[in-house]
Amino acid sequence: MNRIDLYNQIRLKKSYLCVGLDSTLEKIPEHLKKTSNPVFEFNRQIIDATAPFAVAYKPNLAFYEYRGIEGWQDLQLTAQYLKSTYPEIFVIADAKRGDIGNTSAMYAKAFFETMNFDAVTVAPYMGEDSITPFLGYKDKFIIILALTSNTGSADFQNVLSADGKPLYTEVLEKSKKWGTEDNIMYVVGATRASEFTNIRKIVPGHFLLVPGVGAQGGSLAEVSDLGMNNQCGLLVNASRSVIFAGNGHDFAEKATIECRNMQQIMAKALTDKKII
Amino acid sequence: MNRIDLYNQIRLKKSYLCVGLDSTLEKIPEHLKKTSNPVFEFNRQIIDATAPFAVAYKPNLAFYEYRGIEGWQDLQLTAQYLKSTYPEIFVIADAKRGDIGNTSAMYAKAFFETMNFDAVTVAPYMGEDSITPFLGYKDKFIIILALTSNTGSADFQNVLSADGKPLYTEVLEKSKKWGTEDNIMYVVGATRASEFTNIRKIVPGHFLLVPGVGAQGGSLAEVSDLGMNNQCGLLVNASRSVIFAGNGHDFAEKATIECRNMQQIMAKALTDKKII
Repeated sequence: MNRIDLYNQIRLKKSYLCVGLDSTLEKIPEHLKKTSNPVFEFNRQIIDATAPFAVAYKPNLAFYEYRGIEGWQDLQLTAQYLKSTYPEIFVIADAKRGDIGNTSAMYAKAFFETMNFDAVTVAPYMGEDSITPFLGYKDKFIIILALTSNTGSADFQNVLSADGKPLYTEVLEKSKKWGTEDNIMYVVGATRASEFTNIRKIVPGHFLLVPGVGAQGGSLAEVSDLGMNNQCGLLVNASRSVIFAGNGHDFAEKATIECRNMQQIMAKALTDKKII
Repeated sequence: MNRIDLYNQIRLKKSYLCVGLDSTLEKIPEHLKKTSNPVFEFNRQIIDATAPFAVAYKPNLAFYEYRGIEGWQDLQLTAQYLKSTYPEIFVIADAKRGDIGNTSAMYAKAFFETMNFDAVTVAPYMGEDSITPFLGYKDKFIIILALTSNTGSADFQNVLSADGKPLYTEVLEKSKKWGTEDNIMYVVGATRASEFTNIRKIVPGHFLLVPGVGAQGGSLAEVSDLGMNNQCGLLVNASRSVIFAGNGHDFAEKATIECRNMQQIMAKALTDKKII
């Protein structure tokens, strides 16, 4: 899936919502735990209930890996279900990988070939050769961590360099030269809304994946106002606030309501910015 | 497994060798490809052939994930085989994970509970709350990327901060306060031997996991001379140079020879430093 396809989906659905599938087995509704494949069944129902309002989904790998092979099976089933049922949806592996060149090449193979994700999140600490193996795939994206939503992001991402700039701006400035707007996106946390203006000066055209709205406290309206570019350029993620909005038989309906509410705010922001 | 156990194993085997299991299906000997479980069979024979000379093994997750569920099965079988057959050996998941707190907690569960690894490698970019969930496990270690062996490491790890120090020293100085020598180790590439003296000033007592000897060109003698502390404090990793030393029926024997050669250099270094 390429950048223009994604932009067209955003205009069609009037939404730039990404739903994070942090699907902990222990947290899903009790009645699903009796089915043969509870986590996949949970994901399937969440996806069906929210797909009219979301342009992207983002399984978080940790929430599958902690269950070993069974979790990995649920991850693959979920990715396959999304690709076969909703081919117009952008599917992100939130994996935060990154290693030396020949190892990153194997991670790229894992996520872009074996599992056919559209994008994968990657940590930049190991530099250029940890990034470039992901860039050789047509219509696939690497999403590089720039400024994350957690409190610990200040520890290193905000360290000032000798020329007075925080490290995360160095990450943006260097890494944008390794690819293009058609194969690189960046993670920027919603909890850092005040930084969006500065970030847009460095990467005006790139898509930003924005976690931290919802459970982590970031403001959707503020992020939309400061982060949007003339092709939207935002994917705002909500995970727990959507998928665990309810925990009874109505969990999917509650997720629908939550997503529709976010989509309405997004439609207004897209209108205000004259994108729709 | 704790730090003293590891130190005792190093003295017993006169070795601080870690064998990296970067076991690509396509690269293993042809005759193994006809067995029912080629990669696990390859790993098992490599482990049996090299265990007298190695104190640690390090499966590299990318080389399992690219084969999806089958790869993940091989990874779990390998970890189980090591733990059940060689309980005295230190087993590292080279996973380079790291995410916000609640996600890192799930990664810790994946590697320390579901799969019972002794240690996992983690990227520091997301800061303290991405690290601390791994530190609550008794006799388990997190191995934080400090200065890696690849060319891209210079891109961000060597960025000078306002006080004139490279970022990787900031990573060492901050993160060492989050845990102790009994639950934190650091990755320092063998290709950066000149930095070991400086690194030892900051983290004199921590174990360092040192990749980059062998295929990547680092010098075992130099690393040993500059990096060793009075409890050895080194795990030097070799992957491709050991596991793919041969590619015929004698692949395991070739791996034995390669490991024995490294072990002999290590025994001399341990003697020179009066550790054995």
